[in-house]
Amino acid sequence: LIAELINTGTELLLGRVQNTHQQWLCRRLADLGHTVSRQTLVADAGPDIQAAVREALGRADVVITTGGLGPTSDDATREMIAQLLGRPLRENAALVGHIQSFFAARKRPMPARTRVQALVPEGALVLPNPHGTACGLALEVAPNPFRPDAKTSWLILLPGPPRELQPMFSDAVVPLLRQGAPPPSAFACRTLRSVGLGESLVEEKIAGALRTSVGSGLEVGYCARPGEVDIRLAARGPGAEQIVREAEQTVRGLIGRHIFGAEEDSLESVIVDLLAQKGRTLALAESCTGGCIAHRITNVPGASAVFLGGMVTYSDQAKIDLLGVSPELLARHGAVSEPTAREMAEGARRRFKAGYALAVTGIAGPAGGTDAKPVGTVFIALASDRPTVVLHPLNPYDRETFKQVTAQQALELLRRILVEAA
Amino acid sequence: LIAELINTGTELLLGRVQNTHQQWLCRRLADLGHTVSRQTLVADAGPDIQAAVREALGRADVVITTGGLGPTSDDATREMIAQLLGRPLRENAALVGHIQSFFAARKRPMPARTRVQALVPEGALVLPNPHGTACGLALEVAPNPFRPDAKTSWLILLPGPPRELQPMFSDAVVPLLRQGAPPPSAFACRTLRSVGLGESLVEEKIAGALRTSVGSGLEVGYCARPGEVDIRLAARGPGAEQIVREAEQTVRGLIGRHIFGAEEDSLESVIVDLLAQKGRTLALAESCTGGCIAHRITNVPGASAVFLGGMVTYSDQAKIDLLGVSPELLARHGAVSEPTAREMAEGARRRFKAGYALAVTGIAGPAGGTDAKPVGTVFIALASDRPTVVLHPLNPYDRETFKQVTAQQALELLRRILVEAA
Repeated sequence: LIAELINTGTELLLGRVQNTHQQWLCRRLADLGHTVSRQTLVADAGPDIQAAVREALGRADVVITTGGLGPTSDDATREMIAQLLGRPLRENAALVGHIQSFFAARKRPMPARTRVQALVPEGALVLPNPHGTACGLALEVAPNPFRPDAKTSWLILLPGPPRELQPMFSDAVVPLLRQGAPPPSAFACRTLRSVGLGESLVEEKIAGALRTSVGSGLEVGYCARPGEVDIRLAARGPGAEQIVREAEQTVRGLIGRHIFGAEEDSLESVIVDLLAQKGRTLALAESCTGGCIAHRITNVPGASAVFLGGMVTYSDQAKIDLLGVSPELLARHGAVSEPTAREMAEGARRRFKAGYALAVTGIAGPAGGTDAKPVGTVFIALASDRPTVVLHPLNPYDRETFKQVTAQQALELLRRILVEAA
Repeated sequence: LIAELINTGTELLLGRVQNTHQQWLCRRLADLGHTVSRQTLVADAGPDIQAAVREALGRADVVITTGGLGPTSDDATREMIAQLLGRPLRENAALVGHIQSFFAARKRPMPARTRVQALVPEGALVLPNPHGTACGLALEVAPNPFRPDAKTSWLILLPGPPRELQPMFSDAVVPLLRQGAPPPSAFACRTLRSVGLGESLVEEKIAGALRTSVGSGLEVGYCARPGEVDIRLAARGPGAEQIVREAEQTVRGLIGRHIFGAEEDSLESVIVDLLAQKGRTLALAESCTGGCIAHRITNVPGASAVFLGGMVTYSDQAKIDLLGVSPELLARHGAVSEPTAREMAEGARRRFKAGYALAVTGIAGPAGGTDAKPVGTVFIALASDRPTVVLHPLNPYDRETFKQVTAQQALELLRRILVEAA
C-alpha cells in the first residue's frame, strides 16, 4: 500500500515541540511492507487540514492523520474531515459511556467539552482508546472523489498523545491494514553502522560491487553523523530478504573491519558486550571529552559489570594528583601530548585496576589553540596488558562535535583491539 | 513571509532517522516573525522532490529544502532543482578550492565524487559552508511559473547535517530573509525555562494570573522535557513585545525561584556563568549518572575556567581508592546511601581542591533494585565551605531519562546554593 502521513499541530509548526509521530509511524508502516511516500505537517486550522487531506487522498491508498481529536477549541480534525467528506457527525452512546467512565475511574468531574469526543462521522469505524478519551476513526472513502481513477482510499484519524496513538496503531490499525488490503509486498531493510571512513569513501568502496553482485533490486542509502556512516540496504518484492542478505555480505567483505554493528547498535553497546564476553574491565581518563565517553558507556544497561569508572581531569593538577602524570613530563610536553596521553591511560589503568584504560587529551576549542597545537588536536591512548597504543587525529570541529568525534575514535580504537584480541 | 519547509530523505520516510531539522527550522523561522504554513517530507527520488518543490513554490514566499546536497548517488536535490527551474549547473572554481582545502586540512585525499558539490545552478547565490563540503544555494524564482500571480519566491537549499545546516541558516539565510522581504509582522516570543515543578503544576500556578493580568493577546504553551518545563509566551501584532514582557513578569512573580533561565540557556551554562562570576571552582563525583553531569558541564565553552574535573566511580573499590570513602561505611550503609553520597562529595572536594563538589549515587536500573532501595533511588550531595547538603529524590524512569533527571536535580541544587550565596 502507498501511505501518506499528515501531522496536525500549530505547536509543531512553531517548532516548540518535536514531532515524534513521524518517525514512529513511518518506521512501523515500512516494517509492515508499506511505502510511506510523503509526510505533511499543517496547522490546526480547518482549511489547512482539509487541503492536506484532499491532496493526500488523491495520491495514497491509506492516509493517516495525527492530532486534533481532543476536547479543546484548537482540536479541529474530526469536524473538518466530516465536512470535507460530507459525512454528518452523530453522537455515539457507547463512546459517551467510555468518556464518563474514564473520568469516574479518576474521580474527576467530566468537563462538558469532552463530550465532543463521542461524535463519529457517518460510516466511520471507531478505534478504541483504552488510554484516553479520544477514540480514533477509520473511514473508507469509496468511491474516492479526489483520485482520478476514483480508487478507494482509507482515511485513518489518530489522537495526538503518543501513549494513546501507539497502542491504537498496533491494536486497531495494523489489523485493519491487513484485512482490507492486498497482502503487503515483502520489504527487507538492514542498516549497517560503520566508523572510520567518510561518507563518499564508503560509497566509493562498496557501490560498484553492490551493483554488479546484487543488481538492480537493491536500494542503497547513506547517512553521515559525527564519526559514523550508516549504510542502509533495502529491497522490496519477492526475494527482498535474499537481496539484502547478499548485499550485507558484499559490504562486509569490502569494509567489514569498519562495520561495528547494525540497526540500533551503538559503538558503546558493542564495546560493553565485547568486554562482558571476555570478562574484561574498562577505566577512562578524559580530559577534552569531559565525561562524554563515560556518559555514553554508562548509557548502556549492564555497563556496571565491565566499567569500573573514569576520571575527568580537566586541570593539570588533577592529571598529576589523580592519574600520577609526572609534573616534569607535563612541563616538558604539555597536557596535550603523546607522553601525557600515555601516562594518563596507564595511570587510570593502575588506579582502577582495569583490564583496559582509555585516555583522551586535546583542545576542544573554541579557545586554547596554538600554531603548533591548533584547536582539534587530540591524543588518544589505550593501555592494556600489551604495549600502550596512541592515536593522534586532528578534529577541527565545533565543541560538541569535537567531543562526539573524539569519543567515537577512542571507542573505535578499543573496539578494534577487543575484536583483534579475539 | 509565508514559508514552507521540505525535508528530503528516504531514511526519514523509512523511520530510521529522526527529522531534527523540522523543529529547529520551524522554531527559528517563527522567532524571526515568519509563518511556516506547511512542512513536507519526501523521498530522495527526483520526481518526489520536484513535485513537492513545485507545489510549495505555488503557495509560499520562501521554500527551504534540507538534504540531498552530499556527494553520494542518493543526493539528488541540487540536480532535480536545476532541472525543474531550467537552470544549467556550472562548476564553481572557488567551491572546488573550498572542497580541496577541506580535505587537505584533515590530511585526507579528496574523493573524486565530492567535486559534484561544486556545481551551482545558474543565477544561484552560494551560501558558504565552513563546516563541510556542501555549500547551500539560494535561488530567486522570478517570475514564478508555479504561482497563479507569478509572485517571486525564494528557494533555499540547505545541506542535511545539522552542524552544517544550523550555522548556515543563522549566518547566510537570516540576512537574506531580512534583505529581500517586507518587514515581518511583529512577533514576540519568550521561552522561560523552569526546573523543579511538573507541567500541570506550572500551568496551575500561572495560567489564571496570566489570563487576568495580561489578557487575550497572549498565547501560552508548555513543553515538558526530562526534569524541565519550558513556558512559551507569544504574541503577534502591535504591542506584542509589551504583552510578552508583562507576562514574563507575572510568571517570574509567581514561580521565579524555579526559572533558571530563558531561550537557549541550559542549567549547566547558567552554572558555569555563576561560578565564573564568583571565581569559584567545581568538582564532581558521579556514580549513577556515569559522567553525564561532567559531559554537560564540559559542553559549555569556557567550562575549563571553573571545572577542575570529576570522577566516575562506578565500583565500590573506586569510591574507596579515589574518593576516600571508608570501606566500613560502604559495608554498613551501602554504596547508595546518604553517608556514601556525603563522603563522595567531600572526598571529591578535597582531592580536586575545589570550592564546590557535587556527588551522585543511585540505582539507574533496569536491574539492581531492592525493596528497600528500588530502581530510581538517588542520593545527591553538595560539599562546600558550608555544611554538606544531601537530597534524596526517587527517579523511577528508564535509564537515560533517569540520568538526565538526576543530573538536572544535582545541577539545580548547585544553582540554588550559588544564587542564594549571592
